[in-house]
Amino acid sequence: MRLADIARLLDGKVEGDLALEIEDLQPLDEAGPRSLSFVSNQRYVGMLKTTRAGAVILGPGVASPGCAVVRVANPYMAFALALGLFDRPVDPPAGISPAAHVAPTAHLGEGARVAPGVVVGENVRIGARARLHPGVVIYPEATIGDDFLAHANAVVRERVRIGDRVTLGPGVVLGGDGFGFLPLPGGGIFKLPQIGTVEVGDDVEVGANTTVDRATIGTTRLATGVKLDNLVMVAHGCRIGEETMLAGQSGLAGSTIIGKRVQFGGQVGAAGHLEIGDDVRVAAKSGIDNDVAAGSVIGGYPEMDIRLWRRIAAAVQKLPELLRRVRRIERALGTEGEPGSGGDAG
Amino acid sequence: MRLADIARLLDGKVEGDLALEIEDLQPLDEAGPRSLSFVSNQRYVGMLKTTRAGAVILGPGVASPGCAVVRVANPYMAFALALGLFDRPVDPPAGISPAAHVAPTAHLGEGARVAPGVVVGENVRIGARARLHPGVVIYPEATIGDDFLAHANAVVRERVRIGDRVTLGPGVVLGGDGFGFLPLPGGGIFKLPQIGTVEVGDDVEVGANTTVDRATIGTTRLATGVKLDNLVMVAHGCRIGEETMLAGQSGLAGSTIIGKRVQFGGQVGAAGHLEIGDDVRVAAKSGIDNDVAAGSVIGGYPEMDIRLWRRIAAAVQKLPELLRRVRRIERALGTEGEPGSGGDAG
Amino acid sequence: MRLADIARLLDGKVEGDLALEIEDLQPLDEAGPRSLSFVSNQRYVGMLKTTRAGAVILGPGVASPGCAVVRVANPYMAFALALGLFDRPVDPPAGISPAAHVAPTAHLGEGARVAPGVVVGENVRIGARARLHPGVVIYPEATIGDDFLAHANAVVRERVRIGDRVTLGPGVVLGGDGFGFLPLPGGGIFKLPQIGTVEVGDDVEVGANTTVDRATIGTTRLATGVKLDNLVMVAHGCRIGEETMLAGQSGLAGSTIIGKRVQFGGQVGAAGHLEIGDDVRVAAKSGIDNDVAAGSVIGGYPEMDIRLWRRIAAAVQKLPELLRRVRRIERALGTEGEPGSGGDAG
Repeated sequence: MRLADIARLLDGKVEGDLALEIEDLQPLDEAGPRSLSFVSNQRYVGMLKTTRAGAVILGPGVASPGCAVVRVANPYMAFALALGLFDRPVDPPAGISPAAHVAPTAHLGEGARVAPGVVVGENVRIGARARLHPGVVIYPEATIGDDFLAHANAVVRERVRIGDRVTLGPGVVLGGDGFGFLPLPGGGIFKLPQIGTVEVGDDVEVGANTTVDRATIGTTRLATGVKLDNLVMVAHGCRIGEETMLAGQSGLAGSTIIGKRVQFGGQVGAAGHLEIGDDVRVAAKSGIDNDVAAGSVIGGYPEMDIRLWRRIAAAVQKLPELLRRVRRIERALGTEGEPGSGGDAG
Repeated sequence: MRLADIARLLDGKVEGDLALEIEDLQPLDEAGPRSLSFVSNQRYVGMLKTTRAGAVILGPGVASPGCAVVRVANPYMAFALALGLFDRPVDPPAGISPAAHVAPTAHLGEGARVAPGVVVGENVRIGARARLHPGVVIYPEATIGDDFLAHANAVVRERVRIGDRVTLGPGVVLGGDGFGFLPLPGGGIFKLPQIGTVEVGDDVEVGANTTVDRATIGTTRLATGVKLDNLVMVAHGCRIGEETMLAGQSGLAGSTIIGKRVQFGGQVGAAGHLEIGDDVRVAAKSGIDNDVAAGSVIGGYPEMDIRLWRRIAAAVQKLPELLRRVRRIERALGTEGEPGSGGDAG
Repeated sequence: MRLADIARLLDGKVEGDLALEIEDLQPLDEAGPRSLSFVSNQRYVGMLKTTRAGAVILGPGVASPGCAVVRVANPYMAFALALGLFDRPVDPPAGISPAAHVAPTAHLGEGARVAPGVVVGENVRIGARARLHPGVVIYPEATIGDDFLAHANAVVRERVRIGDRVTLGPGVVLGGDGFGFLPLPGGGIFKLPQIGTVEVGDDVEVGANTTVDRATIGTTRLATGVKLDNLVMVAHGCRIGEETMLAGQSGLAGSTIIGKRVQFGGQVGAAGHLEIGDDVRVAAKSGIDNDVAAGSVIGGYPEMDIRLWRRIAAAVQKLPELLRRVRRIERALGTEGEPGSGGDAG
């Protein structure tokens, strides 16, 4: 693809060889003379000096590194668009493989691509242009919209409802039983049947091996535009608002409600029965134990305002020294040895 | 189902229309005029005022919200029983699918339901009434009891032994290799063959995508009644006692022994080679680094008594202020500037 | 196997019955009269008194417990070698199962063992002696070296490149889409196509249900000898150096670079775009937020030197008491009640 054509599609201007033939899009340190590249993070600006890239996407005011430049107003958006130019998605072959197992009462819309080893249960309804990779299992009575993409070995349990343009990564499980057990006074544990379901809106994407449990009663909900990273756990009865994004290995306990446009860093946990407002942002590894007001930016465990959390993280490192200082003061005041004041190894 | 019939099965009394036809069991905010509902958590009592439910399960002394009431002594137990009345489990079709692959030397007891794409290896023995959903893989020589339920794509590795009435969620892995590697002095890493196995008692349930590793030698054990939530990791050689429940994303390092009736919150981690006594309860996100006495209630990392941990969590928030206060005292005493006393940004 | 033969293979000397017939290798508390056993951890030395083992591997200077002894210079290495003597790995039957689905353009080297339900896509190339267990899915254009072992339901996405002697546990996902989403100013979220790939060196082992995402552009790399435990998450664009080992449920955010021979404990998290040097060791549950110098031993969140972290962990437990002591000092000095000094519940 000629650099001039790429620039036109990215709404940018070429500085350099308009006719340069671009073959791929690569990071600065893997790029070659026929690669287009990009400064993905300020940390990597220095790599502009050493890159072998044939051309680079740059914003206004950044000096050319010597190679051709595609000059754009918004480099990150231009990069996002450029990705689409070089994307080579791999779909299952057209049609329904004779080695797939689609129940006679199941309905798939036009344009379905169903790989070998897929199992689609009784009374399932799936919209147009479904792409089901090998080993995908759709339990009976699930209903799924158009443009569904399910990667290998993803599982959708019975009666789960899914909107349009939803993507499931490999190994995703939607609608597994919630963790509901009642230890009995006389010993033994009663399993609460999990008779609810999961409902997923449009434009949702779920990462590899993530699990979303069905509700005990009612519905676990992922609203339109929700994005879950890999190995995330959503427990029974949670509701996640529009365009909320949870990073890898985060987990929600049961019945917690999360607003719109919330963002969790990785390995965050939230207790059950909480309400977390819209536009909340949560630092990685935080533990949320209380309701959170809309717009809050939080960190720590239990969670607190991110600025307080950062000051505490700094202060904690001074704690051994602080113990020594207080002991010195006590010594100066002659209060050392009072009950409760001693014993610290400092 | 008539409300009067439900009440009789729940050992309760109807206040209101005995003949009300109930169609489902729903949470207060999703219930309709033909729904039975329930106050699952004290937080939701206020919803009684606005629910459209036709009937509600209530304990003694709670005022009726206007709709019919099923009055019971123990509302949570009544709710648990009611779930069973509306449960519609989905099993694979009766018999062994011609698209399943059962080794000729494998034995399945009467009443098996084996879905397409299931693979059962040589010399596997499974008891009566097994339900194997699509994509389940049982490696050779595994032995499994009666009433086994394995959801889609669950995997049981070779020689694992499983009791009666065990349920595996989708994507569960029992008996994967333990993480045993020996870095060699001269470079390279020696893999320790993991020649042990996993043994699972009766009435065990394992959540979606959870992994339980086989022992290096000997046996990783889940005793009768153990319940593991989703995405839990149990490393090689661990032993988990009867009726212990580990919530989502918790993990155990190798050879740790956990007693009976222990409960972990989510995202807890325990180091290896520990002993954790019976009836221990662990707050979410805790990190256990030492043996824990029976009956302890703990939190934090390293773990400590839960009451101390709660006081510390509160005290930590005062740490930046405490630094200022100590500096002020030092100033008042004229000790400011002594070695080690300065430098905090407070 | 005769004890004398075992001792010769382990480069040890028998003290006791040379002709003792050994049937298995067991932990001290599961061993019987025909078992060889081993003290796997100093905690278990006391079990030597009560073990029923027929023979025990011991280092120099450890007194015999009464049974036969295989005396060796390095007991752990001898144990590692002994494991291989009793290993009974289970491979898929020889050849390509007629119930596997191998694309006509795919190439598998000699000696392949491909189980039922395996799917191998177009233009895949796999070296000699591959062992693919049931439900393994290899997307098109992946290239894989010799002696590849993939356990049940493992998934390798398109164009991923894998070296020789690589083992994937059950449910592993290599090459899933990275978590790349761009919220748009006017609402909606743009998915960045993840057009990069994953490259895995030789002698890599990946544990059950672990996920390694493909890069947005360029390559996510696991170098030769990398070992990942179960449920680990490696995000897009990370690079992990030779012989680095990450324990269970650890996670890396995007583009982080880890050196050689690094070791993470369980449930560690690292932020994105970091550089972590060679030979770094990280305590379990740590959160890494900054670059880490080679050779560092760290713990905590944010990470710090492990010795400081241990002192802080001890000091934190004294924090409630410290608050009381400072209040007492303030009272003695008559500064109590000054702005900012009060209000702590102690």
